[in-house]
Amino acid sequence: MQLARVIGTVVATVKADNMEGLRLLIVQPLTRQLQPAGQAVVAADAVEMAGPGELVFIVGAREAAEAMPNRFVPVDHAIVGIVDAVSELRR
Amino acid sequence: MQLARVIGTVVATVKADNMEGLRLLIVQPLTRQLQPAGQAVVAADAVEMAGPGELVFIVGAREAAEAMPNRFVPVDHAIVGIVDAVSELRR
Amino acid sequence: MQLARVIGTVVATVKADNMEGLRLLIVQPLTRQLQPAGQAVVAADAVEMAGPGELVFIVGAREAAEAMPNRFVPVDHAIVGIVDAVSELRR
Amino acid sequence: MQLARVIGTVVATVKADNMEGLRLLIVQPLTRQLQPAGQAVVAADAVEMAGPGELVFIVGAREAAEAMPNRFVPVDHAIVGIVDAVSELRR
Amino acid sequence: MQLARVIGTVVATVKADNMEGLRLLIVQPLTRQLQPAGQAVVAADAVEMAGPGELVFIVGAREAAEAMPNRFVPVDHAIVGIVDAVSELRR
Repeated sequence: MQLARVIGTVVATVKADNMEGLRLLIVQPLTRQLQPAGQAVVAADAVEMAGPGELVFIVGAREAAEAMPNRFVPVDHAIVGIVDAVSELRR
Repeated sequence: MQLARVIGTVVATVKADNMEGLRLLIVQPLTRQLQPAGQAVVAADAVEMAGPGELVFIVGAREAAEAMPNRFVPVDHAIVGIVDAVSELRR
Repeated sequence: MQLARVIGTVVATVKADNMEGLRLLIVQPLTRQLQPAGQAVVAADAVEMAGPGELVFIVGAREAAEAMPNRFVPVDHAIVGIVDAVSELRR
Repeated sequence: MQLARVIGTVVATVKADNMEGLRLLIVQPLTRQLQPAGQAVVAADAVEMAGPGELVFIVGAREAAEAMPNRFVPVDHAIVGIVDAVSELRR
Repeated sequence: MQLARVIGTVVATVKADNMEGLRLLIVQPLTRQLQPAGQAVVAADAVEMAGPGELVFIVGAREAAEAMPNRFVPVDHAIVGIVDAVSELRR
């Protein structure tokens, strides 16, 4: 999973059949210092309450579909959690 | 999923058996500022109405096949939506 | 899927059980201008007629196995079509 | 699989349903010389005993879920082993 | 699949349950000119006879597990063949 920030939304009327009703957000992946890393992607919101600017973590590839109510969806990135805190571990 | 633009088409007579009838388009992945990012890929058109120059979003890997009428196809990128609007979220 | 050119072949006597009989070719992924892009990979030939120097398109990840006669094979790249033409779309 | 070091932890109250109870750690992928390589990722701890600073190896993509008690989880990176030693092979 | 060379081994006592008994080797992916390309990864040895320094080809992602005796293992890279020869194709 990867840390990311919600930065936008996508509106699409024409979609593959099994994508109807999914909330699609644009998220920017982040480093652990919460700096942008790589390209923004379009992710389905599996927690259904990720808001603008929120720090989340996303899952990619086949596992993204496992987060959705219907597992057989063409979704390759999903928001699966809203981050409360990121902490450094020390021995 | 990733934003992309339809930039070309591929004609192929010899194909794997279960790829017959699929519409294959060349799409250029884009950043959220809609600038080209990375290499163009060949994607199957799951919405069956993506036109030249159109702004779409594509899905990759195993999920692409979930977008097709027959799920057991060797397809790793599919167009799953035509974008009407991309908006920035503000708190 | 990605455009690629057939550039070599791999001979291997010792192979995982379910890979026996697969034709393994080295292919160089290409940009849409047909320039080399990234590293060459070893792909199984699912159309069984890709020749030396030929322009093909390949599929990656789990979908590659979907192109093979036996789906349960450890194959992550397969040649799934021979390209006749690549054309630019214009509005 | 990839060598990695445990460098932090993620606290998230709001999560996808089937992620409850998973221990989420931030891990930094390493080269074989044990130098940082690429971005840190959030991984579920499948061995349930990886501690701070520990050298582990992680698995990505769909296979990560295979390491969890419930296979149908939206997890794309998992810690699947704690490394005792890494050795060079010599002929 | 990708060409690679066996360069080391990993010893790990604590492992995910279904990884017991797997032989884990460190392999360095190679270009077709057999030069190192990218980071070394930890791969399970599906042919069970890859030796130090040997030229092999590896498979990644979900397909790696298909090469193992038990398909439901958290393995994302596997050695699936030992290379006898790599040849250039000429028309």
